[in-house]
Amino acid sequence: MKKRAAMRPALAVVAALSIGCAQPGQQPASSDSGPPADSTTAVGLPSWNEGAAKEAIVEFVARVTDPASADYVPEPERIATFDNDGTLWSEKPIYFQLLFAMDRVKELAPEHPEWRDRQPFKGVLEGDLEAVAASGKRGLLEMVLATHGGMSTAEFEEIVESWLATARHPDRDRPYTELVYQPMLELLDYLRAHGFQTFITSGGGIEFMRPWVEEVYGIPPEQVIGSSVKVELQERDGEPILVRLPELDFIDDKEGKPVGIHKFIGRRPIAAFGNSDGDFQMLEWATAGEGPSLGVLIHHTDAEREWAYDRDSHVGRLDRGLDEAAERGWVVVDMTRDWNIVHTGPPQTAQR
Amino acid sequence: MKKRAAMRPALAVVAALSIGCAQPGQQPASSDSGPPADSTTAVGLPSWNEGAAKEAIVEFVARVTDPASADYVPEPERIATFDNDGTLWSEKPIYFQLLFAMDRVKELAPEHPEWRDRQPFKGVLEGDLEAVAASGKRGLLEMVLATHGGMSTAEFEEIVESWLATARHPDRDRPYTELVYQPMLELLDYLRAHGFQTFITSGGGIEFMRPWVEEVYGIPPEQVIGSSVKVELQERDGEPILVRLPELDFIDDKEGKPVGIHKFIGRRPIAAFGNSDGDFQMLEWATAGEGPSLGVLIHHTDAEREWAYDRDSHVGRLDRGLDEAAERGWVVVDMTRDWNIVHTGPPQTAQR
Repeated sequence: MKKRAAMRPALAVVAALSIGCAQPGQQPASSDSGPPADSTTAVGLPSWNEGAAKEAIVEFVARVTDPASADYVPEPERIATFDNDGTLWSEKPIYFQLLFAMDRVKELAPEHPEWRDRQPFKGVLEGDLEAVAASGKRGLLEMVLATHGGMSTAEFEEIVESWLATARHPDRDRPYTELVYQPMLELLDYLRAHGFQTFITSGGGIEFMRPWVEEVYGIPPEQVIGSSVKVELQERDGEPILVRLPELDFIDDKEGKPVGIHKFIGRRPIAAFGNSDGDFQMLEWATAGEGPSLGVLIHHTDAEREWAYDRDSHVGRLDRGLDEAAERGWVVVDMTRDWNIVHTGPPQTAQR
Repeated sequence: MKKRAAMRPALAVVAALSIGCAQPGQQPASSDSGPPADSTTAVGLPSWNEGAAKEAIVEFVARVTDPASADYVPEPERIATFDNDGTLWSEKPIYFQLLFAMDRVKELAPEHPEWRDRQPFKGVLEGDLEAVAASGKRGLLEMVLATHGGMSTAEFEEIVESWLATARHPDRDRPYTELVYQPMLELLDYLRAHGFQTFITSGGGIEFMRPWVEEVYGIPPEQVIGSSVKVELQERDGEPILVRLPELDFIDDKEGKPVGIHKFIGRRPIAAFGNSDGDFQMLEWATAGEGPSLGVLIHHTDAEREWAYDRDSHVGRLDRGLDEAAERGWVVVDMTRDWNIVHTGPPQTAQR
């Protein structure tokens, strides 16, 4: 992972400069008054349109970072947690990690003749995605475990890196890393510039994310929380290696998210960002603390620039969150209204 | 955990000042040449005597932090991991967490009449420590699970904080936090001043450590790895709470230490510090990487100022580590020879 390491000092410099320049106490600007107040600082939110969502975020950050505020939060306690799929990058037609697993099935198929007659493997090999989906959670989990285990952690890291460097999204024909949300990258930088630590808390695999999120999001491996398989210390050629077993260790989703946050961070976040009901308990946990807190849901409303889905979607279903956001004081980001850019890659209209 | 948070910015300032002043490239001084070169910088190692151990540590830090060195390591990869019991504070007559568990048994005994006839509980209540020890690992584990579970994580945190604020070491009659090693506190500061992240990787309970290690060691909760019980999200009076179950989740000892490091940090440490064969695999893992690395074992040789034990000790047994340290290039710190101060508390002769 050497090559990624060089970026953090640079980010730290940007952050330091920004903290030196920004005057959080003067924010937020009213949403109607000319150019946004933070657009001239080193780290701003230029891809966010003026409006209630941006205003709520900027106001919260100003409040918890202003030493004169009653809601001031010391820097070590400024923990923000982010879901990944659908919150930091897209998740359609299905979680990208499942597309990775399907590519792995095709690659490993010669060693597994039994897969030709067994779902969901058969469906993957025959391009029958309905059959894959019909295998349900149990089938998909079996596929992930069968394709993600049995190698060392270092080997898996290389497999993920090499896949991400070459694979292209099936509908959009572009690298997956171009389907990262530009406004969320800006938000990560913005929070870090204001002394926050930004953690990922994803239902996706922790080792599927760690090889690339430092370069893409500026989030180091020790700030990634996710689902995991069991890992075992073994010896190979006299050297210790860590081997991934085809056995689940932890599922970091729904009620697992507060558990994972507690396990890895040991502090309650003061801000949490998600997009689906899988993030409900994380937002609930973050906003149930005594001090100031911020809960944000990204609502996928943009069928033109991204995908539009919520209550009826199998992937990224958002139902209870929409029902309860207002009474809980959570911010709902309307992708169409609140973001003037969606992806980091060049703009592109949906091709479905 | 609010009250502890204020210390980190101060540490950061010290670190920044030190990095600004220190010239790591000029270190190390020869071990025989007058006052140590780093004793005049903001963060030094004054409690370490000149000698091979200190020299090896200072030389390693100089080498990996000097941009002109072939062994230069970028800051995000400067991960150092520390065992706790016997490495950062004492562990005699038995791990302090077991003394905590025994105090909990006495406190909870009125609710558990069945403990009067059952070991190791009976032994605790009757002051028969041999009977407690005779219950073995299984008995001690049962005692820990019975006294550490069944409450919320917030309640457990309060119990630990209140115990540590009032409990006194049975032989030394002083607070446990005065049995922290002054030279190791200096080393933690020294490494952080040189851009390292300092993680704890202890066989002890992660939630037993998190309430106090930020204040005592300057290590925030997200940099603590340890053994854990399962935790579950529940609801109490309409609010989400995390409840500790009387069930083991993870044992962070021996072959578990590299697994825990990989799970929580996701990078291989370049420096690891331990004192017993429970740390062997951690040091092996840290020093098996391709780049520069440092493995250090604290050897408990000082019966006057602390305790003297190694190969035959039940607690903190160090046998294989002593045998293989030389061929593996690990540094063995001789507490008598290498430390001019041992504990943070006032000097005191052993009373056993």
